[in-house]
Amino acid sequence: MHWAMVSGCKGSLAARMRDVARNAEFRPMKVFLSQQNYHVGNFEANTARILEALRQAEEMGADLAVFTELSVCGYPPRDFLEFGDFIRRCEEAVDEIRRHTSKVAAIIGAPARNPDPLGKDLFNAAWLLHEGEVKAVVHKTLLPTYDVFDEYRYFEPAFSWSVVPFKGHRIALTVCEDIWNLGDNPLYRICPMDRLIAQEPDLMVNISASPFDYDHDDDRKEVVRRNVLKYGLPMLYTNAVGSQTEIVFDGGSLVYDDAGRLVHELAYFREDSAMVDVSTLFVRKQGTVVEEPQPRDPARPVRNGDPSRIIEYLTGEHNIAQIHEALLLGIRDYFGKMGFRRAILGSSGGIDSAVTLALACEALGPEHVRAVLMPSPFSSSHSVDDAVALSRGLGNPYDIIPIEGPYEAMLQALSPVFGDMPFGIAEENVQSRIRGNLLMAIANKFGYILLNTSNKSELATGYGTLYGDMAGGLSVLGDLYKTQVYALAQHINRGGGCIPRNILEKAPSAELRPNQKDSDSLPDYPSLDRVLHHYIEGRMGPSEIVATGVDAGLVERVLRMVNANEYKRNQFCPVIRVSGKAFGVGRRLPIVARYLV
Amino acid sequence: MHWAMVSGCKGSLAARMRDVARNAEFRPMKVFLSQQNYHVGNFEANTARILEALRQAEEMGADLAVFTELSVCGYPPRDFLEFGDFIRRCEEAVDEIRRHTSKVAAIIGAPARNPDPLGKDLFNAAWLLHEGEVKAVVHKTLLPTYDVFDEYRYFEPAFSWSVVPFKGHRIALTVCEDIWNLGDNPLYRICPMDRLIAQEPDLMVNISASPFDYDHDDDRKEVVRRNVLKYGLPMLYTNAVGSQTEIVFDGGSLVYDDAGRLVHELAYFREDSAMVDVSTLFVRKQGTVVEEPQPRDPARPVRNGDPSRIIEYLTGEHNIAQIHEALLLGIRDYFGKMGFRRAILGSSGGIDSAVTLALACEALGPEHVRAVLMPSPFSSSHSVDDAVALSRGLGNPYDIIPIEGPYEAMLQALSPVFGDMPFGIAEENVQSRIRGNLLMAIANKFGYILLNTSNKSELATGYGTLYGDMAGGLSVLGDLYKTQVYALAQHINRGGGCIPRNILEKAPSAELRPNQKDSDSLPDYPSLDRVLHHYIEGRMGPSEIVATGVDAGLVERVLRMVNANEYKRNQFCPVIRVSGKAFGVGRRLPIVARYLV
Repeated sequence: MHWAMVSGCKGSLAARMRDVARNAEFRPMKVFLSQQNYHVGNFEANTARILEALRQAEEMGADLAVFTELSVCGYPPRDFLEFGDFIRRCEEAVDEIRRHTSKVAAIIGAPARNPDPLGKDLFNAAWLLHEGEVKAVVHKTLLPTYDVFDEYRYFEPAFSWSVVPFKGHRIALTVCEDIWNLGDNPLYRICPMDRLIAQEPDLMVNISASPFDYDHDDDRKEVVRRNVLKYGLPMLYTNAVGSQTEIVFDGGSLVYDDAGRLVHELAYFREDSAMVDVSTLFVRKQGTVVEEPQPRDPARPVRNGDPSRIIEYLTGEHNIAQIHEALLLGIRDYFGKMGFRRAILGSSGGIDSAVTLALACEALGPEHVRAVLMPSPFSSSHSVDDAVALSRGLGNPYDIIPIEGPYEAMLQALSPVFGDMPFGIAEENVQSRIRGNLLMAIANKFGYILLNTSNKSELATGYGTLYGDMAGGLSVLGDLYKTQVYALAQHINRGGGCIPRNILEKAPSAELRPNQKDSDSLPDYPSLDRVLHHYIEGRMGPSEIVATGVDAGLVERVLRMVNANEYKRNQFCPVIRVSGKAFGVGRRLPIVARYLV
Repeated sequence: MHWAMVSGCKGSLAARMRDVARNAEFRPMKVFLSQQNYHVGNFEANTARILEALRQAEEMGADLAVFTELSVCGYPPRDFLEFGDFIRRCEEAVDEIRRHTSKVAAIIGAPARNPDPLGKDLFNAAWLLHEGEVKAVVHKTLLPTYDVFDEYRYFEPAFSWSVVPFKGHRIALTVCEDIWNLGDNPLYRICPMDRLIAQEPDLMVNISASPFDYDHDDDRKEVVRRNVLKYGLPMLYTNAVGSQTEIVFDGGSLVYDDAGRLVHELAYFREDSAMVDVSTLFVRKQGTVVEEPQPRDPARPVRNGDPSRIIEYLTGEHNIAQIHEALLLGIRDYFGKMGFRRAILGSSGGIDSAVTLALACEALGPEHVRAVLMPSPFSSSHSVDDAVALSRGLGNPYDIIPIEGPYEAMLQALSPVFGDMPFGIAEENVQSRIRGNLLMAIANKFGYILLNTSNKSELATGYGTLYGDMAGGLSVLGDLYKTQVYALAQHINRGGGCIPRNILEKAPSAELRPNQKDSDSLPDYPSLDRVLHHYIEGRMGPSEIVATGVDAGLVERVLRMVNANEYKRNQFCPVIRVSGKAFGVGRRLPIVARYLV
């Protein structure tokens, strides 16, 4: 593949270019922004998608089409980046796209090899392709290596910076995280835009794969706005869309004019595109008087507000509505990209399975979702009635398979070992694991994926059975605290959903022994969720949590439950991530340890 | 806590110090090297261990005691490092140890705060404590962020380097990875020892937590030797010992004289200590004529040798003997640090469960290991006989629990759904999951940890049942290919073990349908393991593997199996890591992807 590194313009050529650039912004330049849903490693499909958008951009008379970070291979490719074969396929994809840029130029994302023998082999790069050539390759500087991100595992950070010339413009082209240090981000010592601004760019373009959480769209706008105000340049910002295993990318690509005003915002949670004439974005430079834009939406719940109002924040309508969208996309993409259409799940008559079922029906169509009701000798009659009413309302098929027979046979098989020891947690777990076995058997027989129905409060405290109710290929609610599951149920019903009132109102129970209630084993959910949120999302220690006004004994008890159950969560399926700190790849704790237990 | 950053010596003071240093090496300085087995997060126990070693060092007249990387909190602490409370406890531990250094000095490992507002909050540091004071804090420069390592997730790399003065010596003190770039490691652009050597040190000290794999002790000696020869200085190298969840640290701390000769080597796979008089290590400088040391042991199998001899390499006695030791330590520490004494496992009469059982009995004592034989209607009679013979030989308790009753009850419960569909994989999996349920029930009832018996070839190809034979708290053999499991069985028997010959000789079978053999579903194991090793450890692509002389159809079939089963491995328990690339935390692939499938 032919390509040339862009180097800083020097001497008289540079001066000439800058003169051209000084007036370039007033000339029309049409840029097509494209946020697409890529499939990791599916080069054929991703390239076809990009070429289709290029055709569309060309038809619409675009000068340039801008895609998102690592678009050719999908983000995050994770350890596939360690395979030379995978990198060669990325290069072949770039090459194929390059051949289609004779008219409209393209900025795409792909790994680039590091020609220097020192440092890691690859850069995470933005490629400017035009006239059938690679015109520039810009390397990412700030490599997120926290939460779900592992970029320093694969990439060398950029160590030189150059503005990219295009049609008389001088583009400060950056990749995702590169605009997230405005001099006050303690993770980094470098601010890439500070390096670029010295070369007098007239436009910022950033290609991102910035994942959703229920605060992140707001953070993102604030960061883009602050860059615009700091550097006095308009910004075109593209963001990936689509769910990749557990990480949901929400799109919402942005166009800001040079006065810091949001001019255009692409759709959230779906593919979208837009054409922008860059010459319209220089209102400040053209002397138009504009109002100073408002920072952040004042109506939004505040993450770090009064700690005693944390439940109010977690269950706020704005957050829950976004979570609803994210979970639908998460389910749809998991199935679609795994090549499955149909889901199965255990429907207990409780709130978690009800909400999971309602979401699955909305995402996949009720005809593709099979609910299995598996009453045990300890199930109350209303459990089956409520679960039946739910499926009738949703219109999805359901089966009733009592587990008494397998349960008796298991106890019989165990009787030489158990003797006359009293009923306990082992017998409770046997029931839960019979259900897991039945669900997996039906899934294996007919080609369903089992949806898991656990919530974050249960997962945090270990209130679940490995290989039983913790079984499944995808966890829908695993990043929602129990209080948020209730709020989501109400939100769904307000939007025309049909979760029976009895399911919303009865006391939560696992129904694995007579008259069992969650409250026998756990603190009340608002108190529990508050402590969990401080510990998991807030990374607060015991004394800090107590200082917010929580009973010390409760804090100690809850933190011990969380830390003692790392081994269970380690074997759990992917959790659709909606918060800033979900269980799974973004939270990595030792299993064998003794801290706060 | 009071401490002072060591800064480079300047001007006449520096010159004077260097004069002192020039002769210091000939004066006796006694250094106590200590490799201990820490428990992550267990500050009380770790501090007590360190203080006990300090007392011993003092009694023996040591000037300095050297411990290992992140000794106060245990390595790797992973995301506990994000908790301010955890860091405060590290600081309290350093403080407590500091107060015990009035006579003998100590070099310990602990996180250090970054006083600069720029960059991440923490450094991974070596602390020199003496006379009740913090004399120096040296920050780690090269932060391993590959395989099982995530250090850049937590730490800022050092950006200044200073030799540490101690008793007239000038110590080039480094942390683990810092000596692994000799100018030819493509992961890094900096060589910390090159920065330090300009300050004329006379001794190198490196504190490490360098994990075991069956090549790594050899690599480690080679790296230490090359540093010694490059810089012409002796090196004291301490390495952690003990297993941390899945990562085994094998100790083997090293002392090299300035001629590059290995003078002392501490024990492998157990705690050990040694006293070294540094003045004896300057043989080259003192003009003694010494023989040039030999690089690498020529008798060792070579990792990157002839690809057609890969099985010979994988099953070589040298490797298998080390793996045996590592697995015993891995089992012992998992149980000991989790606070358990007793193991349970399913004993099928096959090779994998036989080897797992033999290892568990050796690690925990046969009286603490319970084998459960769970014949199904498809089990051959010899399976039970062989498993009984094995347990009789080992002397561990066992139960026989036929699964026919629960299996019939499960099929009965499923019959309204399954109708008269023919027997298939779903029914096979039902049997496997009944076994998982029985084992977990007994484990829950009596307080056992379930040991998993899967091998790496099965895990790679997905030839196992989630929640069935893939259940368990710890995988003993999950990083051994099937051919290696056979080699280990033979090694155990040569060492006096009693794995029945019939188990070693019969054809492998899951026995989940009549006359089933592994070879019905999988290629022969030597061919399979060769392709797997090229792909998993070697990160070779399909065309590269074919180029080594393997059939293209076989390669495609095997790689597809590996990539299609990421979702299963994602829910698997920790695997004791013995190779350079084990399944689990060190291998991170997307679950939802389409590459080579």
